[in-house]
This record gives sequence, C-alpha cells and structure tokens, in this order.
Amino acid sequence: MKQLPLLVAVLLMLVLSTATRAEQTYTLKLAETWGPNYPILGDATRNMAAMAEAMSGGRLRIRIDSSNRHKAPFGIFDMVKAGQYDMGHTASYYYKGKIPNAMYFTTVPFGMIAPEQYAWFYFGDGMALMEKVYAPHGLLSFPGGNTGNQMGGWFREEITSLDDLQGLKMRTPGFAGEVMAELGVAVTNIPPGELYTALERGTIDALEWVGPALDFNMGFHQIADYYYSGWQEPGAEVQFLINQQAWERLPADLQEILRVAMRTAAYDMYIQSTHQSGVAWSQMQQAYPDVQHRTFPPEVIDALRATTDRLLREASENDPLAREIVQSQQDYLRQVRPWINMSDRAYLNTVAPTD
Amino acid sequence: MKQLPLLVAVLLMLVLSTATRAEQTYTLKLAETWGPNYPILGDATRNMAAMAEAMSGGRLRIRIDSSNRHKAPFGIFDMVKAGQYDMGHTASYYYKGKIPNAMYFTTVPFGMIAPEQYAWFYFGDGMALMEKVYAPHGLLSFPGGNTGNQMGGWFREEITSLDDLQGLKMRTPGFAGEVMAELGVAVTNIPPGELYTALERGTIDALEWVGPALDFNMGFHQIADYYYSGWQEPGAEVQFLINQQAWERLPADLQEILRVAMRTAAYDMYIQSTHQSGVAWSQMQQAYPDVQHRTFPPEVIDALRATTDRLLREASENDPLAREIVQSQQDYLRQVRPWINMSDRAYLNTVAPTD
Repeated sequence: MKQLPLLVAVLLMLVLSTATRAEQTYTLKLAETWGPNYPILGDATRNMAAMAEAMSGGRLRIRIDSSNRHKAPFGIFDMVKAGQYDMGHTASYYYKGKIPNAMYFTTVPFGMIAPEQYAWFYFGDGMALMEKVYAPHGLLSFPGGNTGNQMGGWFREEITSLDDLQGLKMRTPGFAGEVMAELGVAVTNIPPGELYTALERGTIDALEWVGPALDFNMGFHQIADYYYSGWQEPGAEVQFLINQQAWERLPADLQEILRVAMRTAAYDMYIQSTHQSGVAWSQMQQAYPDVQHRTFPPEVIDALRATTDRLLREASENDPLAREIVQSQQDYLRQVRPWINMSDRAYLNTVAPTD
Repeated sequence: MKQLPLLVAVLLMLVLSTATRAEQTYTLKLAETWGPNYPILGDATRNMAAMAEAMSGGRLRIRIDSSNRHKAPFGIFDMVKAGQYDMGHTASYYYKGKIPNAMYFTTVPFGMIAPEQYAWFYFGDGMALMEKVYAPHGLLSFPGGNTGNQMGGWFREEITSLDDLQGLKMRTPGFAGEVMAELGVAVTNIPPGELYTALERGTIDALEWVGPALDFNMGFHQIADYYYSGWQEPGAEVQFLINQQAWERLPADLQEILRVAMRTAAYDMYIQSTHQSGVAWSQMQQAYPDVQHRTFPPEVIDALRATTDRLLREASENDPLAREIVQSQQDYLRQVRPWINMSDRAYLNTVAPTD
C-alpha cells in the first residue's frame, strides 16, 4: 500500500494532461482590411470564425480586429508577416507594391470569372503558385471570398465611343486606373467618404466601386444613370493570410478546421454577393427607374483589352515567376472558358426569358 | 491516509470519463447512389468524409457503401428513412414518385444556374422549404454537390426545327423525357451500360447524359457529332440525406463539423465539375475535331419552355406546398437573373475573346 501516494500522483497527472489536451484553447488574432460591420466582406470573417469555434467546441477562437482598431487597412500583409496578428483578411492586390506577383491572385482584367478561378485555385495550379509567392514571407494564403463580377462603374453620361473617354474625370484605382489613364481618362483618387459628393457636384464624371451589393449603400444610383458592366475585375477574390508559425502551433485537427472554415466562408461570400447584388439591383431599379444597364461599345472594349495585354506583358517581362503565373492563368482560361461558353453562357443567351 | 484508495478510485474514474469524452467516436454509415470510384459524385462523398474525420481528430467517421454493396441505388431515401443507413448521397428528384415535391430541389428546366440556386438555398427560402418537404419523413436534407449546367445531349443529326424532333428516338429520363415526349420525341429507356451500343447502332438517334466531365468516359463523342447545350438541368444539385435520429445522437461540435463538411464538399463538387468539364471538352475536340457544339433553334426552345411551364403548373395545381416552392423559385429567379445577366453574361458576351 505504500505505493499509493505515487499512484495518486500519476493518476492526477493523467487527469490533468488528458483534460488539458481536450480543452486547450487557441486564440488567433485576425486583422481585417474592412471597417466594423462591413457587409459581405466583414460577414465572411465572422462566418469563418463562427464555424471554426463551433466545429472545435470552443477550442479555436478567432478574435477579429477591424480597421478602426488596428488603423492599418492596407498594412495587413506586414502585420501578419511580423506576427503582430496571426491572420488577416484582405485582398492580395493591395500589396502589389511590396510583392508585385500578389496581384494576380485577386483577379485579372479580362480574366476568369469566379467559378473558373476557383477551379484554377483548387484543381489547377493556383494554390501551388500562390504558395510560391507567399512562402518566402513566412505566410500562408487562402481564397477568402469572391465579390462576383464587378461592375465597370457609374457614369453620368453614356459612353458611345473611345472619344467619350478623353479627359473624362473618373475615380478608378489600381491596375484598371492605369489602363484607363492610357486611354485618355483623367484618373483621380478620392477617398470613399467623399465620392458621392464628388460625383454629385461634377468633380468627377464617373467612378468604379464594386457591384450592386456594395454600391447600394453608397447611393451612386441616385445621381448617375448609367451602370456599365465590367472588364477589370471579373471575379475578385479576397484572401485569408496566416502567419506560418501561428499555423504550425495548431494541432492537426484545428488546422483542418481552420482550412475548411476559410474555404466554406470564401464560397459562402461568393454566394452571398450573388444574392445581395440581385436584391440591390432590383431595389435600385424600382426606386430609380432612370438607372440603366449598359455595356461598353466594342471599340472601347478592344482598346481596354489591348492596353491590358501590353501592361501585363510588361509587368511579367523580367520576372520568371510572374510569367509562370500569367501563363498558367491564360492556359487555364483557354481550357475552361469554352465549357462555360457552351453551358452557362449558351443557356443564358438562348434559354432564359429575363432581360 | 486511509482515504487514499477512495481518492485513487475517484481519480481513476476522472481519467476514464475525461478520456472517453474526448475520444468517443461516432461512425455514420452512408449509402450513395453511385457505384464504387464513381468520378465527381463519388469524390464528393469521400471529400466530405475525409474533412469530417480530419476536423474531428478521428471522432467522426463516415463509412461509405456504394451501389455495389447496398444494391439499391434509388432506394437511398427509404434506407435512410428506415435508419438502415444514417446518411445518403443521392439526388432529390429520384424520389419524385414517393415525395413529388422532392424534385424541385435538384434542378428545374429553364430554372436557376448553380450560383443562383445556392443563393436561393442559403440566402433565400430554399433550405426552409426543403426542410418542410423532408422533416415529415424524419430526414434532414442538405445540398450535396452541383454538376454545373447539364448538356442537352448528343445527337447524330442536327436539329434545325421542331419537325426534326418528330419520331426521334432519344434516351432522356425523368421530367425532361416527359417534356420531350409531348413534342413528339420517341422517348426510350435504356440502361447506361447499353447506351453506347444503342447510339452506335442507331437503336436510338440521341441521348442525354450529364456534361463533358461524365460523358467523356461513356465515349459518346466518338459516335455522335452534335453536342447540344441544355435547357433541362441548368444546375443539378445532388443531396446529402441524414436520418434525424442519427443527427441528434451527435454532439453539437460534430453536428457542425458534419454540416460544414457537407457544405464544402458540395461547393467543391461544383468547382471540380467545372474543371473536369473544361478538361474533357478540350480533349474531345482535339481527338474528334468533327464534334461540334450546337444550341437548339428558338422554335424548339420556345416549345420546350411552353410545355415545361404547363407541366409544372399541372404538377403544382392541387398541392399548396408545391405551389409555394415553385413560386419561391420563380420569384427568386426574377430577382437574381437580371444581376447574372448584367455581370457574368454581359462579360462573357462582350468582353471575352474565346469562342
């Protein structure tokens, strides 16, 4: 009986270690580019966090900081790389200045629509190429939600020719802005909070934002009649970034829970965008019957495409990895687009009564 | 010191109960309609099971029986309802004979494409309506994967008018077959294993299967030149069925793991179908350059639509729940389709170079 105290000690350790293993919680800090309660984009992080917490029985918690807390909406890449945050929710193309090849993983003008691009990520070379770009920075990157096909923008006057673009004052940031500038557009940069007033007062003639779901709250349909289909962001995918060391601290089951929660939240965001854009466009048309949908005339599209092709060629000329990514996307598009054309496109064109 | 044995006993119980709670495993038996190693559809169940097992650290296991084991590919509904299996992977419209309203949750001719339909399920009334249909049978039903837009079929001769359909011998099952029969087609039912020979020998003139991804292995492109875009299954969603009691036996974390694993596997199947159809169509065209894509002429489309509308109206006339479902789908389509038309359809029509 004199071994009893030893037995008690051993059993006590077993209780503690078993209980600890089962109950140990992990909290990941996530910084998102978006402000608090931002629709769709902010819903995606909360959807992801809720799934991860419920699936792990509370063992994996994601604490989300919006831009009002971390004050660095376009500093997510740096903060997650430095380990200041474990995770981020942002868009790859915001970091074009630091890692030029990041931009290809959001969307490319004249490129793939959402289901094509998901197919490239998950069944083509997309994920492997994205890893090549992010691994040197100690980061993992995953698709984080798609906005769907973005609109070309709100215009106060119709665009019927290339001439109409000369001197047109338009807010359109990033790569699309570079292309537009080459075509003679006077591209201006105006903070989001001042856009409505700028468009209303004629400081600008046109602007590009996202699509009906996110444009609705900005109110642009109240002051511009022409809503043009897009060419510049056919399937904009935001991203989840994870610090490699934070990822490796997680046990295997929580890594898989996190991976699947991100994947589902990304798909869900694409579907939510589809839903919400349908709702918002229908509301815009009912309240403002003068608002009309337009597509750019062929000569404008042709000029946009030629300029896009040239700029993409120049960007990838001296960078073998950029060339590999661009080539992979173009090859994939050539393979998948004929199928999309003979299925959904043919169906929408020949079979559907609406519009 | 004489309480020591009691302390040992208490600690021993604690070790066991803590360990048991953490390690208790649940095994769900799943019956799938498909045969073993069936591509895409069978991949979806395995993808779901692998995610569930890894996310639960092995606490949730799904044992999959294919049709070669359970011998009842179209008996999944009955077997899961009876509790013979805990889960099923099948298509809702196979059970039209037993529960007529099940058919609306797979796809409807001239209805929604995949992203529209997911939006209806998850952000419209789809899930609530599906629950109304399945709950009385003690079953839960979840989207289980989308094939994408299905093709209208393989034809040995071109269809240029309604007259060409008179007496045409075609294999096309289900609702589409009923519509085709009304238009004068001699609809025949031939087992899958005999389809190639039947088409080759002229026993039939045409047949409908799925789309390039699944048609490829059937070899139809080797013996028929015309591949028509579809009208009958614009976004066929298969389903996961779960016995309500089996679901309720799971702890909350495993329920959420199962829900999310099914949701992701469903989305993944849609994306895999998109990928694999792109690959297969490209291979068909390279090996058989005579194979051509066609769309049915407007008079055929109009007749198909009018007949579809009439049959759907008749099916829902005396069934309030059917009317509610059909109305919900039509209302949703009217809301979401204008957005799809001004985004992806406009983009594919005006902006894309391929085809």
